[in-house]
Amino acid sequence: MHIDHIGIAVKNLEEAIQTYEKLLNTRCYKREAVEGEKVDTAFFKTGESKVELLGALSGDSVIQKYLDKRGEGIHHIAFEVDDIESEISRLTGEGFTVLNHKPKQGADNKLVTFLHPKDGHGVLIELCQSVG
Amino acid sequence: MHIDHIGIAVKNLEEAIQTYEKLLNTRCYKREAVEGEKVDTAFFKTGESKVELLGALSGDSVIQKYLDKRGEGIHHIAFEVDDIESEISRLTGEGFTVLNHKPKQGADNKLVTFLHPKDGHGVLIELCQSVG
Repeated sequence: MHIDHIGIAVKNLEEAIQTYEKLLNTRCYKREAVEGEKVDTAFFKTGESKVELLGALSGDSVIQKYLDKRGEGIHHIAFEVDDIESEISRLTGEGFTVLNHKPKQGADNKLVTFLHPKDGHGVLIELCQSVG
Repeated sequence: MHIDHIGIAVKNLEEAIQTYEKLLNTRCYKREAVEGEKVDTAFFKTGESKVELLGALSGDSVIQKYLDKRGEGIHHIAFEVDDIESEISRLTGEGFTVLNHKPKQGADNKLVTFLHPKDGHGVLIELCQSVG
């Protein structure tokens, strides 16, 4: 298990891309809209992990709701696992609340699920597995 | 530049260690108190990065202030750099507000500095360099 990415919720994706290109001293290498979630994303490589900026595509996006409630900042951490279904079983057995028992399609060609933030001491944790 | 660690502020460090040992499926491999910051820490390995749990050692700890204001959750992301002083110069030149122009001693045998969260779209970013 390693950190696949850190997701950061931002109000203005274009401005945030410029900021993080300077901050991380690397170019945004991928843009991808996840229409199902109404989220626009931008990726930066930092070692084996990525920084993923998250902008809202509409007012009812989960990201817009997060921004309205908490403001800009870290939205989630994602850990890459080899076998997401066995990891869901393991964590359910350990008493964690897994939000998507059947993994769903996320950005960056991944199957993803989330744990309830109350189980991560306030941290929204994503588990992801690369596919295809 | 890669993610050295993610720092998570928690109310009860012992409870959080138990949770994260189950969640990450790995044992806490290091405990360290940073007396100068009044912070108690616990580390977990996840690939090339670490998860660092942060508990307050006293009521006037920066972590206690964070918990009082925001509750539990991700406190900062730390990026490892080869030469922290040249990185401070580069980022200052790019217009970022560096909080410690002279790096200070942090946990895990590192020299560290922080950028103002307003410059990271709400994210407190630490830069660190391993020493010794």
